[in-house]
Amino acid sequence: MFQLGAFLSLHSFGESHGNAIGGVVSNFPAGISIDLNEIQNALDRRRPGQSSIVTQRKESDIVQLLSGVYDGVSTGQPIGFLIPNENTKSKDYDHIEKAFRPSHADFTYQQKFGIRDHRGGGRSSARETANWVVAGALAKHILPQEVKIHAFVSSVGDIHCPEEYTAMDLANIEATAVRCPHLETAEKMIQHIKEVKKKGDTIGGVITGVIQNLPVGIGEPIFGKLQAQLAHAMMSINAAKGFEYGSGFAGTAMLGSEHNDAWNSDFSTKTNYSGGIQGGISNGMDVYFRVAFKPVATLLQKQESYDIHGRPILLEGKGRHDPCVLPRAVPIVEALAQFIIADLFLIHTLRKI
Amino acid sequence: MFQLGAFLSLHSFGESHGNAIGGVVSNFPAGISIDLNEIQNALDRRRPGQSSIVTQRKESDIVQLLSGVYDGVSTGQPIGFLIPNENTKSKDYDHIEKAFRPSHADFTYQQKFGIRDHRGGGRSSARETANWVVAGALAKHILPQEVKIHAFVSSVGDIHCPEEYTAMDLANIEATAVRCPHLETAEKMIQHIKEVKKKGDTIGGVITGVIQNLPVGIGEPIFGKLQAQLAHAMMSINAAKGFEYGSGFAGTAMLGSEHNDAWNSDFSTKTNYSGGIQGGISNGMDVYFRVAFKPVATLLQKQESYDIHGRPILLEGKGRHDPCVLPRAVPIVEALAQFIIADLFLIHTLRKI
Amino acid sequence: MFQLGAFLSLHSFGESHGNAIGGVVSNFPAGISIDLNEIQNALDRRRPGQSSIVTQRKESDIVQLLSGVYDGVSTGQPIGFLIPNENTKSKDYDHIEKAFRPSHADFTYQQKFGIRDHRGGGRSSARETANWVVAGALAKHILPQEVKIHAFVSSVGDIHCPEEYTAMDLANIEATAVRCPHLETAEKMIQHIKEVKKKGDTIGGVITGVIQNLPVGIGEPIFGKLQAQLAHAMMSINAAKGFEYGSGFAGTAMLGSEHNDAWNSDFSTKTNYSGGIQGGISNGMDVYFRVAFKPVATLLQKQESYDIHGRPILLEGKGRHDPCVLPRAVPIVEALAQFIIADLFLIHTLRKI
Amino acid sequence: MFQLGAFLSLHSFGESHGNAIGGVVSNFPAGISIDLNEIQNALDRRRPGQSSIVTQRKESDIVQLLSGVYDGVSTGQPIGFLIPNENTKSKDYDHIEKAFRPSHADFTYQQKFGIRDHRGGGRSSARETANWVVAGALAKHILPQEVKIHAFVSSVGDIHCPEEYTAMDLANIEATAVRCPHLETAEKMIQHIKEVKKKGDTIGGVITGVIQNLPVGIGEPIFGKLQAQLAHAMMSINAAKGFEYGSGFAGTAMLGSEHNDAWNSDFSTKTNYSGGIQGGISNGMDVYFRVAFKPVATLLQKQESYDIHGRPILLEGKGRHDPCVLPRAVPIVEALAQFIIADLFLIHTLRKI
Repeated sequence: MFQLGAFLSLHSFGESHGNAIGGVVSNFPAGISIDLNEIQNALDRRRPGQSSIVTQRKESDIVQLLSGVYDGVSTGQPIGFLIPNENTKSKDYDHIEKAFRPSHADFTYQQKFGIRDHRGGGRSSARETANWVVAGALAKHILPQEVKIHAFVSSVGDIHCPEEYTAMDLANIEATAVRCPHLETAEKMIQHIKEVKKKGDTIGGVITGVIQNLPVGIGEPIFGKLQAQLAHAMMSINAAKGFEYGSGFAGTAMLGSEHNDAWNSDFSTKTNYSGGIQGGISNGMDVYFRVAFKPVATLLQKQESYDIHGRPILLEGKGRHDPCVLPRAVPIVEALAQFIIADLFLIHTLRKI
Repeated sequence: MFQLGAFLSLHSFGESHGNAIGGVVSNFPAGISIDLNEIQNALDRRRPGQSSIVTQRKESDIVQLLSGVYDGVSTGQPIGFLIPNENTKSKDYDHIEKAFRPSHADFTYQQKFGIRDHRGGGRSSARETANWVVAGALAKHILPQEVKIHAFVSSVGDIHCPEEYTAMDLANIEATAVRCPHLETAEKMIQHIKEVKKKGDTIGGVITGVIQNLPVGIGEPIFGKLQAQLAHAMMSINAAKGFEYGSGFAGTAMLGSEHNDAWNSDFSTKTNYSGGIQGGISNGMDVYFRVAFKPVATLLQKQESYDIHGRPILLEGKGRHDPCVLPRAVPIVEALAQFIIADLFLIHTLRKI
Repeated sequence: MFQLGAFLSLHSFGESHGNAIGGVVSNFPAGISIDLNEIQNALDRRRPGQSSIVTQRKESDIVQLLSGVYDGVSTGQPIGFLIPNENTKSKDYDHIEKAFRPSHADFTYQQKFGIRDHRGGGRSSARETANWVVAGALAKHILPQEVKIHAFVSSVGDIHCPEEYTAMDLANIEATAVRCPHLETAEKMIQHIKEVKKKGDTIGGVITGVIQNLPVGIGEPIFGKLQAQLAHAMMSINAAKGFEYGSGFAGTAMLGSEHNDAWNSDFSTKTNYSGGIQGGISNGMDVYFRVAFKPVATLLQKQESYDIHGRPILLEGKGRHDPCVLPRAVPIVEALAQFIIADLFLIHTLRKI
Repeated sequence: MFQLGAFLSLHSFGESHGNAIGGVVSNFPAGISIDLNEIQNALDRRRPGQSSIVTQRKESDIVQLLSGVYDGVSTGQPIGFLIPNENTKSKDYDHIEKAFRPSHADFTYQQKFGIRDHRGGGRSSARETANWVVAGALAKHILPQEVKIHAFVSSVGDIHCPEEYTAMDLANIEATAVRCPHLETAEKMIQHIKEVKKKGDTIGGVITGVIQNLPVGIGEPIFGKLQAQLAHAMMSINAAKGFEYGSGFAGTAMLGSEHNDAWNSDFSTKTNYSGGIQGGISNGMDVYFRVAFKPVATLLQKQESYDIHGRPILLEGKGRHDPCVLPRAVPIVEALAQFIIADLFLIHTLRKI
C-alpha cells in the first residue's frame, strides 16, 4: 500500500533498537553486476560516528544481501537485505518510556497504535533511513552511468551557500564533514554546528539535490510526475519540512515572461526555471530541487514536558544525537533520488514498447 | 500503479478537448448520503469564466455520477463520474500541432510517447483538475463534520497576505474573486492580476492550506506520512513548484530550542511549528501547509520559439487563459487535501481494529 | 487495491440498471492503432439477445472511447470508456427489493454494505463483464499478432466435447450459437439448453481457453505466476466455480514419470501436461486451461424462499435470463485472458531491460 | 506489484540455497499478542524430514521475528522475519547448472532472466513456501478465535478419501504422516506413497481446505472476490494445477433447480453448493475448496534430457526430494487461506466505517 517506488519497490522493516533492520527490493532487473563496495560506501557516508559534528553512536552498519544476487549478478529476484543493530543503548531511553518528547513521534505513535517501542524512537527513528541508502545504492546500478545524482548542504541555519550548484565543483561535496562544496562556507557551517552543539542545541538547514544527464521522458503523467514522486520520497525523511524544485517558492514572484524557459534550436532551454521537468516528465535539462530540514528535536538541555499521565517533568536528551541532521542527510537524499529515478526509468522503458 | 489515494483511490481519464473527462473513485464506504449540490458547488468554484481575472472558457462543468450511489446514498461500489467538455475551441491550438510551447508539456509528451493530443494541451491540461475536485468533494462526505479543510491565496507575485491564517476570518475566502481572506490585500492582488493580464503576461503565487480539528492518529509511518501524501498530491498540480508544512523552509534557520513545540498538560502544544504532524501522524493541532505556483506559461504576447523541425517561429498564445492560476487553484488544493485526509482517515480506522 | 492487471490495469464501475457502465484502462502503451470495430465485435459476441439460447434483454452495447486515443492511435494516456444501459426493466426486480434470491448475491451485498441497488442485481450483475470485454479487446492490440487466444464451450451439463482442442478446428467456434467447435456436439448442447430452458431451469458447463504462440518468459515468479493471474481473473467471473490448467485435476492421479514433459532438443516438449507454464512462466508451448461454470441461479420456476424479514414467500424469476451462461461467457474468458497476457507481456518487457 | 494480500501484505525473498529466506509482513494491526510457538509449530508441520514419506533434507527452520513485535505484542509496524538455510547441499545440483530438468522452472527462469541460481532450484524452489507459513501463522492471530481454517489430503493418486469433510473428525488430520483424517484411507495413501518412492517415482493428489465460522461479509466485489483471492494464492503454490470451490467442476453437470441453495428462515442454507460464497462475499456457511497438485517433477530415476547446448544427456534427481508433495502442502494451503482471510477480514472492517 505505502512503499517507496511504484514498480521497483522497497518494503522495509526495523526499529532503532531491534536486532536488525532491513528490507526487500522487488522487481530489480536481472543481469546487473552488483558492486557491494559501492553500497557499503553509501552506508558509510550515512553512518553515525563518522565525524565530530554528528552523533557518536557506533554502528559498523555492514549490510548483508541475502538473495537476488548470484555470483555478483542480479537474478531478477527480490533482493532481501539486513543491517544488524549493534550499538543500542536502550537504557538511555528509559526516561521516555512513560513520557513524550516534544516535537518527537512518541505521542502520535502511542495514540495511533496504543503501543510503541520507545527505545531509540522505535520505528520512528531515522535509523530506517539506512535501509533507504541500501535501496538507493542498489537502484543506482540500474541507471545509465552518465546519469549523475548529487546532493549537498546548501544552508545550515542562516549560513547559506553563496553559489548555485552550476558554479561549484560538486567533487568537493565530500571534502568536508558538512558536505557543502563551497569550502569557505563549509568551514563556517562546521563552526556554527559546533557552537550550537556546545549549547546542547540543534540547528536545521537545506539540502540541494541535482540530477544531471537524465534522458528526456522520465516521469509519468498526472499522479506519477517526477516532481511529485521526488516530493513524496523527500517528505518521507524524518526531519523534512519542505520541498521545491526549479524556481520553487522564489519563482512565485516572477512574471511568466521572465519565468518561461526559452528554447534553443535543439530543444535545450536557455534558462532552467522549470528544473528540468515539464508536465511531470524530464526534458533533458538538469533536475534540481531543495529539501528543508528542521532542527533536530532532541536537545541535550532540559525541556519542560509532561509524562503520559500529564504530570510535569523535566526532560533532557541522553545518549548520542546529531546537533544537525544535514551532513548525514546528504546520502539519504541521494539514495531516495536514485531509487525514484531508477523506478521511473524502468517504467518509462515499459511505456516505449 | 500511480493513483490518488492508497485505499480510497481515484483513477481518472480525459483530455482537454475530448468528449468528456471523468474517473472512478474506488473503495468509497457504503451508507453515506451524497449531496450532489455540494459537489457541483466545488466544481463551480473551479469553473472557468467565473470572474474577470480567470480564463473566459465557458464550461458548465456539470458532473454526472454514473454508479455507486443509489437513492442518494453510497452503496460501497465504485463511483464512476463524467464531466462533458463543451466549449472546446480546438482551432485555437492549430499553431502548436507542429510546435512546442516554452515551459509547457508539449515537448516532453511528444518525446516520451511519440504522439500527443495537442488540442488544449491534451492530457497535460489542467482540465484534469476538475476530476480531482469531484473526487475531493466526494471524499469530504467521509470525514467527520468537524474536520474543516480550507485553502486560500496567501501571495500573488510579491503581494503577500500580512496575517497568518490564525488571525484571519476564513469565511472571507470566498468574498473576493482572488480568494484571499485578507480583504485589503485581496483588492491589491486583483489589481495586480489585472495589470499583468493587460500586458499579456502572467504571475505566480502561493496558496496556504489549513486542516482543522483533525483527530490524532491520521497518517501512516515511513512512506505513508501525512505530509508526504499531501506533498505528492499537491506537487501533482500542474503549476506547483514547491510544498512546505509547519515551519517549512523558514524553520531551517531556527534552533531546536526555539522550534520544539512545548506540550500543554493535555498534550496540545504551545506553539505549532510542527504543523500538526509528528512522525507523519497528526497530533491534534492544526495541519497547515503552503504550495508554490509558478506563473502560467501561456502568454498572450509573442515568444520566440522553434517548430518541431527546429525552425524558428514566433508563438503567441491564443484562446482563453488564466493570467494567474491561484484563484482557481484554491478549490483544487482543498479537494486534494480532502481526498488525502479521507483516505488516511479510512486507513487509520482499519489500524485500530 | 483490487483491480484487473498489475501494470496494465482496469478500474471499472457500473450497475446493471444505472445509466451506464464503464471503466478506465491505465498504462496502455502509446502508438498503437486502435480498431474500434474489433472492440465492438467482441462486445457483440457477448451481447444479450444474440441468439435463441441466451437472454432476450436488448442492449445495443455500443462502447464509447472517451480518451487516450487520438486520430485512431493510442496516446499512452488512460483510456476511459462508457457503455450506456438501455433496455433496463427495473420493475422486473421489484419483487426482490425486499427478498433475497437463493444462490444470488442479494443477501451478501445487503449484509456487507447495509444497502444495495437491487435492480437487476446492481453491481453484482454479470453486466460488469461487458466492461471486461472492452478492456480485453483493447489489451489484445498490445499483443504480437501471432499470439492467438481462443475460448470455447467444452461441456454443457454432461454433454462433453469428445475431442481435445488440438484435434478441432477452432475457426468453428463461432459457427454455432453455443460456441463449441465440435459441430455435432454443439448441436446436442443447443438442444439440451433448449430443453432445460423450456422447463424454466438452467444448466452449467465448462469453457476451455487456449493461448497459442506465446513467447517464452511471460509470467512472473511467486505471486505473479501466469496460472495464478489467470485463475484470479477467471474466478472473478460471476458463475465461475473452478479453474485448472494443463493436466489439472486429472493430473493428480498420474505418476511423475508419466506426467513429466520430456524435452525435444529445441526445448519444446514432447507432451504438454504442464500446460505451457513452468514456475509460473510460459515455456513456449500452448497454454490451456478450463473454467467451470455453475448453472445460472435465476430460474423461471417457483422457488421457496424468505423475505428480508424471514417470512416465507414463493420467488419466481421474472424478466430475461440466460438458461446457460456458457455461450456468452466465451468472449468473457477470452477477454480476461487477453488482458492478463497483455499485462504480463508488458511487465516482461521491462524485466529484460 | 505482485504480492500476497491486498492490505495486509507479504513481500518475501530468498533462494533455496542462499543464506536465508524471509519477508516483510506490512499493515499488521497493533496490539495483538504474538504466540511464537504457534508460528514455529506451523513451520514444523511444513518442515522437511518430519516423516519417512517426505524429503530427508534437514532444516530446523527456526524463524526469527526481527521487528514489529515488542514485548510479545504487535506494534502495528512491519514484521520482518528470517529463516536461515542450513542443510544446503549445493553439490547435489551441479549436474543441472548446465541442464534443464523436465517439468521444472530451470528453462523458463534461464530464458526469462538470462541468469538463474540453479542450486536447489533457486527462487523457484518450494522452499519459499516456508515464508508463507510464517506469514499465515502471523495472520491467523488477527482472526477471531472461532474462525477455523483446516486443510487435509483428500486424494493421493487415485486413492480418494471416501467421506466429505462434514462427515469426518478434522482433529484426525495430524494423526498420520499423510494428513488425511480418514484413518483407513490415510494408511492406504502412505503405503502408496512408499511404493511410488521405492520406484524413484512421484505421485500427485488433492488437498481440501475448509473455513468454518467465517462471518458474513468477507470478500470484496468484482476483482476482490473471496474465491478469486483464494484461487490466486493457491495457484501460486509450486505444484498446484487446479482450484475449485463449493460444487466446483462437478457442479457444472447440475441443473439450477438442484444446485441452488435454498434458504432456511435464518438465511443459512439447506445445502451448500455455493461453498459459502455469493457474489464473492462470504454468506456465513462453510467455505470449502479443493486444490490439485501434480506429481513432483524430480524423479530418482533416469530421464532423457538435453543440456543447455541441446546435447542429449541422462538426468537423474540427486539429493533429497518428496515423493509426494501433499502431506507437506497441507500447512501451506492453511497458511495461504489464513493470510487471505485475514486480509479480507481487515478490509471488510474498513468497509463498515
